Amino acid sequence: MQVGLLISLVCACGFVALFFAWTKARWITRQSPGTEQMIAIAGYIARGAQAFLRREYRVLSIFVISVAVILAVTGLMGGADLGRSPLIAVSFLVGAVCSGAAGFVGMRVATKANVRTTNAARTGLSEALSIAFSGGLVMGLCVVGLGILGLAGLFLAYSGLTDWSTIKVIDVISGFSLGASSIALFARVGGGIYTKAADVGADLAGKVYEGIPEDDARNPATIADNVGDNVGDVAGMGADLFESYVGSIIGAMVLGTGFLTVFEGSGAALGDLSAVVLPLVLGAVGILVSVLGSFFVRVKEGGNPQKGLNLGEFGASAVMAVLAFFVITWMLPTEWVATTSIVGEKVYTSVGVFWAMLIGLVSGVLIGLATEYFTSTATLPTFLIAKQSVTGAATNIISGLGAGMYSTGVPALVIALAIVGAFSTAGLYGIAIAAVGMLSVTGIQLAVDAYGPISDNAGGIAEMAHLPAEVRERTDKLDAVGNTTAAIGKGFAIGSAALTALALFAAFMQQAGLETINVAQPNILAGLLVGATLPYVFSAMAMGAVGRASADMITEVGRQFREIPGLREGTATAEYAKCVDISTAAAIREMIAPGLLAILVPVIVGFISPDMLGGLLVGVTVSGVLFAIFQSNAGGAWDNAKKRIEGGISIDGVALGKGTEAHKASVVGDTVGDPFKDTSGPSLNILIKLIAVVALVIAPLL
Amino acid sequence: MQVGLLISLVCACGFVALFFAWTKARWITRQSPGTEQMIAIAGYIARGAQAFLRREYRVLSIFVISVAVILAVTGLMGGADLGRSPLIAVSFLVGAVCSGAAGFVGMRVATKANVRTTNAARTGLSEALSIAFSGGLVMGLCVVGLGILGLAGLFLAYSGLTDWSTIKVIDVISGFSLGASSIALFARVGGGIYTKAADVGADLAGKVYEGIPEDDARNPATIADNVGDNVGDVAGMGADLFESYVGSIIGAMVLGTGFLTVFEGSGAALGDLSAVVLPLVLGAVGILVSVLGSFFVRVKEGGNPQKGLNLGEFGASAVMAVLAFFVITWMLPTEWVATTSIVGEKVYTSVGVFWAMLIGLVSGVLIGLATEYFTSTATLPTFLIAKQSVTGAATNIISGLGAGMYSTGVPALVIALAIVGAFSTAGLYGIAIAAVGMLSVTGIQLAVDAYGPISDNAGGIAEMAHLPAEVRERTDKLDAVGNTTAAIGKGFAIGSAALTALALFAAFMQQAGLETINVAQPNILAGLLVGATLPYVFSAMAMGAVGRASADMITEVGRQFREIPGLREGTATAEYAKCVDISTAAAIREMIAPGLLAILVPVIVGFISPDMLGGLLVGVTVSGVLFAIFQSNAGGAWDNAKKRIEGGISIDGVALGKGTEAHKASVVGDTVGDPFKDTSGPSLNILIKLIAVVALVIAPLL
Repeated sequence: MQVGLLISLVCACGFVALFFAWTKARWITRQSPGTEQMIAIAGYIARGAQAFLRREYRVLSIFVISVAVILAVTGLMGGADLGRSPLIAVSFLVGAVCSGAAGFVGMRVATKANVRTTNAARTGLSEALSIAFSGGLVMGLCVVGLGILGLAGLFLAYSGLTDWSTIKVIDVISGFSLGASSIALFARVGGGIYTKAADVGADLAGKVYEGIPEDDARNPATIADNVGDNVGDVAGMGADLFESYVGSIIGAMVLGTGFLTVFEGSGAALGDLSAVVLPLVLGAVGILVSVLGSFFVRVKEGGNPQKGLNLGEFGASAVMAVLAFFVITWMLPTEWVATTSIVGEKVYTSVGVFWAMLIGLVSGVLIGLATEYFTSTATLPTFLIAKQSVTGAATNIISGLGAGMYSTGVPALVIALAIVGAFSTAGLYGIAIAAVGMLSVTGIQLAVDAYGPISDNAGGIAEMAHLPAEVRERTDKLDAVGNTTAAIGKGFAIGSAALTALALFAAFMQQAGLETINVAQPNILAGLLVGATLPYVFSAMAMGAVGRASADMITEVGRQFREIPGLREGTATAEYAKCVDISTAAAIREMIAPGLLAILVPVIVGFISPDMLGGLLVGVTVSGVLFAIFQSNAGGAWDNAKKRIEGGISIDGVALGKGTEAHKASVVGDTVGDPFKDTSGPSLNILIKLIAVVALVIAPLL
Repeated sequence: MQVGLLISLVCACGFVALFFAWTKARWITRQSPGTEQMIAIAGYIARGAQAFLRREYRVLSIFVISVAVILAVTGLMGGADLGRSPLIAVSFLVGAVCSGAAGFVGMRVATKANVRTTNAARTGLSEALSIAFSGGLVMGLCVVGLGILGLAGLFLAYSGLTDWSTIKVIDVISGFSLGASSIALFARVGGGIYTKAADVGADLAGKVYEGIPEDDARNPATIADNVGDNVGDVAGMGADLFESYVGSIIGAMVLGTGFLTVFEGSGAALGDLSAVVLPLVLGAVGILVSVLGSFFVRVKEGGNPQKGLNLGEFGASAVMAVLAFFVITWMLPTEWVATTSIVGEKVYTSVGVFWAMLIGLVSGVLIGLATEYFTSTATLPTFLIAKQSVTGAATNIISGLGAGMYSTGVPALVIALAIVGAFSTAGLYGIAIAAVGMLSVTGIQLAVDAYGPISDNAGGIAEMAHLPAEVRERTDKLDAVGNTTAAIGKGFAIGSAALTALALFAAFMQQAGLETINVAQPNILAGLLVGATLPYVFSAMAMGAVGRASADMITEVGRQFREIPGLREGTATAEYAKCVDISTAAAIREMIAPGLLAILVPVIVGFISPDMLGGLLVGVTVSGVLFAIFQSNAGGAWDNAKKRIEGGISIDGVALGKGTEAHKASVVGDTVGDPFKDTSGPSLNILIKLIAVVALVIAPLL
């Protein structure tokens, strides 16, 4: 089969995703947004979200243009020897624009879907689920659609317009991944700071000044809180997975160039390019499977929405596994011999590559399940935290930190086994394919993730608009499922970040011509130690930012209560925009320093010594993955321990519930967990991938 | 010079340490223990501490004998090929007994010094400082004395009694280090669980049931709390540094065997053995310097005790640096050529080795200072935590966690630079010598560390015995200094653990015949990831243990208040022994699982693949060092943020102090920090060293 035709088909799948997303978005827009009050509230949220994105993108455009200029100049300077071209700047720009566009569209639709979900919940559960899930699906499909279109499109363009070798084409395309990562960093970190500054601020302000619940319309920070769900959990998560998705594919493509001579004349479907193109094809198939899976997400009136979501997600994974077998065995030779410095000469098979892909897919599910165990309201860890809340906030915190620490065990073991397993079946390429496998159904996975914050928003709107209790009950039902899916999604995001970073690490080694990273060598060990420290410092920056911004928020809320007559009684409207502004300004301001840290450290270390950079990559990946799991799961566990107490639980014969001392203690844990699980924890996913992709991009220059 | 004579001199220095410790102990015993009530209270504490040690040692003896049998059998089975002998079991037993003896004597003297310090404080500050410091000095000198005597004695004995090669002698002596590590693990973990179960229990019980301060004699858990200071901070810290001290010396000796052929006929003072014996000689000189330094620790009435302690400690370090220069340049050839797989052929000099030793000494001081900055009551981080306490416990916790994360930066950088620096001046041997350098003045360093809990105890006794306020003021003055020295001591313990673990790691590689640990190899990467996870799981176990044990303690205190008539009014005596018993039983029970984890994981992984074990060592060291610094410093910062608020601080015009909401929030932080800084954090020091020494001991069998 001809390569050009196949890649055109891949592009077509990207268009299918975008077209399907467009029809879903149109359908959502056509639904009724409800009462005037609901429209007004939703309008505040939508405007706040867009104001944030606009300001964020304005800052980012300066950054993106600067980096593009640097890439173009170094591309020019390097000349042909370095195999680099100014076109890498074009890749970078396209990557940044695609990531930004996916985030923009996803959030715009999410802020339409939220109020329409609320309105649908006034009449029933089924329609509400449909709207919330469709809102998430638009995000999911935009991410995979733009991701695959960008990669495949650039591949077609560079191959067609130049006479470059495949190796050079792929090298220049890696700029696309850097573009995606740069946007992701700021979207995740900025979004994370935004959402938690607003959330913690709204929470504490209500408590400190008025005893007003956080969703109460009188609380001036409440709109900012709802905006935060969108910019953090929708746009931030979208950018995160966009980066993983693109990074895993590009990592596999780079490693695939190692097979060019091996596959030449092997009779493989696409000749020497088979291994390079395979990741793109798997991505394209994953899009079709995700679209297919979305049809299975439905719920009967009075049924459990979890079932529908599970059917869609796990069904899609199963179908993907079957299709991947046929794709891989069709595209790759049945067996071939490759020689590496690590294991010497070895026979590999196409079925082995399939196993690697399956290992990735299964690992993602296992990490998700482990995450669910540690954070679900139905399991032991949250029960123990709830129990320890009886003796106060301190024991609640100790218990939650302990749960977070324990929770690193299984995911780390799964990742370790995945690495060893994928490598033994298909070499380093296998590790990259495992990452591709884990991310192959990102479309529907992300839809399920983004469904959570949309439902959460829908509940908030119901509360603020004083809708009847049954509406809130329905949205709560959707939201409760959303919490579980969010936890699984976070585990999945970390797992995929780990494998993607390792794939990029392997690609970096190949591009930098490193055969070993010997940690017995002191400068590599030092690099590893410094790398392992970065997640700590990076998290500290993010936590500090949330602390400062939420303090500003509390002060502003206090000012409004003092200065706006009638606010307390509910006869005047709060100045929501001021609070939105505080979160926005803080997020934009505070995302700069950690962002620069993540970009400059690998560049500086790389120019000191490429070996040391190799050590740094390993250090930041291993330490970052563990610290991220620790934080995310501790945060999730505290959150749901609080929910368990609120749901009414009896421990040692004592009944707990809202208003008890144990509940107050659990609220402290939940508040501590907020920046843990939504700011610093997930930001580490980006950190590890970004550092790896920066290393990959600068590798030919070292 | 003859080797036998020099080593006999080294042994003599060990005896000097023990003799000096004995005279100090006798002097302390001769001081008056004060009033009858003071004697009674001190009696409770001393008996509680001994009851704990007795039970701990009973459990440990089973463990130690079992391991000794295993070592003896594998020694027999292995035969001459493996270069191992059943005598390694003897080394192991001697190491375990020396470590145990140092802990026993140190704690016994500490529990005499506490009440005598209180009594001396009734008349003045100067005498009280003398007694408290002397108590610590006994511990410090016992540790270095028994450490050096054990190592040098075994070296003399094995060299004299057998016709073994030096390599075999050193290999068999490494069992001594394993013995020390095993005791250290249980002393640190068990002691850590004990002290914090009692502390958290006493704190919360007083709050939950009666509103009684933790040092109030009516609180049944208060004696257990004071016992805890002794078993955790005196015996635990002593065992920790004993392990580091011995580990660093044995690591350097193993690496020194690499010079046997290089130095043969080089004209070095001790011929081929020069590099092997140098660490022992440095240790012996350090003992003399520590004894000398102890004479400078004094304070005038009304003066600041910090000055005296600093003079002793830093003065000793300076003198040590000067003497080390002469020792090293005398013992080693001026220059020599060595070939390694890492840098190829290179010229090394004796002055280079001196620089490595100095790098270690200076790094220890720098890490201590960084630790002090992040945890002192006079610096920014604790101020920020105090400020964030105004908005409640949640922001206090977030801020403290952030401070702990930030605080990893400088120590990690110092260690990274130390590794690179020591290696570039003196190769892998340089890294081990840096560790020896950092630990060379352990005698006085540990005296200053152990002085802290003795002063703390003295204050507790003053409170319980209802002595006049000025007595408590004087002990508080001693105690405040103790908090700073404790923080520095903890930083020092972590830094030395890191360098010691790296020295042992290098020794392991040499013994296992590994030239590279290539992390690009998936099973090594997997080992690294699993290793990096261990500190999380280990910490979670320790935190969980504290949580469970303190809950038991709270229940018991409640029972006593209900069932003992007159306890509330102060007319009846609490059943202190019951509380002591709960802490003891919990510590013994809960130390088993983490202990087995630390010992079995490296053995299992090692027999799967020595390479993977190499990866595991690197992972556990890097991750463990960072996680330990994070926890220790977060805990220290919370503690002193609370002290700042209690001291009366005004933030943004609002006066904070005892009884304010901000103070309550800071108490939550302090309680969370307790197990962080005194249980799980310091336990990681042991974890990383123990895993490294287990690897070293099993290396010839792999």
